[in-house]
Amino acid sequence: MAISLIPKEEKFFELFEAQARHNVAAAQAFKDLARNWSVESPDFDKLRDIEHEADITTHEIIDKLNRSFITPFDREDIHELASEMDDVVDLIQSVSSRMKLYHVDHSTEDLVALADILWQSTENVLKATIELKNQKSNRRLLDYCIEINRLENAGDQQLGIALSKLFSGKPDPLEVIKWKEIYESIETASVKCEDIANTIEGILVKQG
Amino acid sequence: MAISLIPKEEKFFELFEAQARHNVAAAQAFKDLARNWSVESPDFDKLRDIEHEADITTHEIIDKLNRSFITPFDREDIHELASEMDDVVDLIQSVSSRMKLYHVDHSTEDLVALADILWQSTENVLKATIELKNQKSNRRLLDYCIEINRLENAGDQQLGIALSKLFSGKPDPLEVIKWKEIYESIETASVKCEDIANTIEGILVKQG
Amino acid sequence: MAISLIPKEEKFFELFEAQARHNVAAAQAFKDLARNWSVESPDFDKLRDIEHEADITTHEIIDKLNRSFITPFDREDIHELASEMDDVVDLIQSVSSRMKLYHVDHSTEDLVALADILWQSTENVLKATIELKNQKSNRRLLDYCIEINRLENAGDQQLGIALSKLFSGKPDPLEVIKWKEIYESIETASVKCEDIANTIEGILVKQG
Repeated sequence: MAISLIPKEEKFFELFEAQARHNVAAAQAFKDLARNWSVESPDFDKLRDIEHEADITTHEIIDKLNRSFITPFDREDIHELASEMDDVVDLIQSVSSRMKLYHVDHSTEDLVALADILWQSTENVLKATIELKNQKSNRRLLDYCIEINRLENAGDQQLGIALSKLFSGKPDPLEVIKWKEIYESIETASVKCEDIANTIEGILVKQG
Repeated sequence: MAISLIPKEEKFFELFEAQARHNVAAAQAFKDLARNWSVESPDFDKLRDIEHEADITTHEIIDKLNRSFITPFDREDIHELASEMDDVVDLIQSVSSRMKLYHVDHSTEDLVALADILWQSTENVLKATIELKNQKSNRRLLDYCIEINRLENAGDQQLGIALSKLFSGKPDPLEVIKWKEIYESIETASVKCEDIANTIEGILVKQG
Repeated sequence: MAISLIPKEEKFFELFEAQARHNVAAAQAFKDLARNWSVESPDFDKLRDIEHEADITTHEIIDKLNRSFITPFDREDIHELASEMDDVVDLIQSVSSRMKLYHVDHSTEDLVALADILWQSTENVLKATIELKNQKSNRRLLDYCIEINRLENAGDQQLGIALSKLFSGKPDPLEVIKWKEIYESIETASVKCEDIANTIEGILVKQG
């Protein structure tokens, strides 16, 4: 067995960066799916693969955490971050699979807008994760967190617009059931990105 | 910078009391709204303001927690309490905003009953929080916690009545979708009050 | 007061085993109900009783945890395990009570299948809990955890089949609202069993 030259602590940062990249990849695939909806889309398989890989990364982080005596930041924060990042991918994959189960045959501009906001959030989470690893500029890290919070507010507004439209006039109740869940789940993924930003801010303050 | 004469530990209790007051204010505004339903009601703005202030208080607590070496009780319990109290206000404000988005044009006696139970719970949470600060009588504190548990059971019963009515006969599915969510969310806020009571009971037991 | 001859640490294991037995009993009663659906079934009262007893056991565990300085494994893990096990019983009892409130007048083969998978999961959780107490064979314990994970995947597949059927053709939206919640809640109980397995695996890893 070769001796690792990378200090063990850095391994955590690398795993979080890998996980953040899974988040971006999932959000990207879902954005593509929302723009070019088709039940035949290869994005369904792509999302399933990403979800599987993200699962493995989560287990690696938790396993490493359980085996480590020294960690680069609080154990609870590592656990929290790992589980929040896993939730983002799970939510995205699960929405795509529900849309298939519900025999959804089209996308909407509101879904495209929500998917785009989510994708921007995951991009900012990735940048924050890289900054956390480099620990060069906390100022920049905080800016990413603020941007993620701003995006979540935008997502919440967008969800309001989507729901208000959905309930207007005399809608088909079945469409309401399906699309309410789809819109809400994508917005929940954005809330999870905000949770990630809050966890990272907490880590920074403690290192203060 | 002036030197604070209030011991730092007490600050936590003051922040929790402030947060409990936000909970009562939100439950009160929602109760008023449920009694005198109107899309023009000033209670919508009031709820938005309370939610904003509660958010600031939550951040103050978490920030103070992250910066403090010594805390009046377990760190996890402070974190738990802060997040549970924040959830109560969030849930209440979010229901009011959903009712607007869903173009709801009336209230029901079941909503009034649920809102009243929730308001009573928040009143008892406030009393418990003040007692926790004074630390004079654990007996009285436990009585408030027992009352909050009793109220949650009453809320659960009331939700059952409301749902059974909602699903009776041949209801409009759209009304079912809207009111099921409204009733359940208000009851969930009561469950959060019960969580708060459980967290407080845990703190008492640990202090032995 | 008699002096207990059982070391205090063992008491935790006994309480977890008792709780796991409540889980099995609840899953068994629900499986019977799903197979022989009747609003007059004695299983409703049975489920209410089990839920009440499980509640008492949960409080015993939490109370014991709050009073103990030394615990057989990490405090957070004990708390997590207790709350996850309580959730399983709560979810099962709550679904049965919702089915009554929704005036459901029949069962489905998909519900029977989901209930059967859940029952198998609780059986494996019980076996894992007994193994954890005896601490004889970690290999066997891990096998139970792997089986619980396999069952959760089977449950997820089964839920997909049930939902796809439910949304096929032109279904009655009220039936969709009811059955979507029923199916999802039973699958959520299986996910909770998987959470229990993950918590147990974490305990094992930490014990090295």
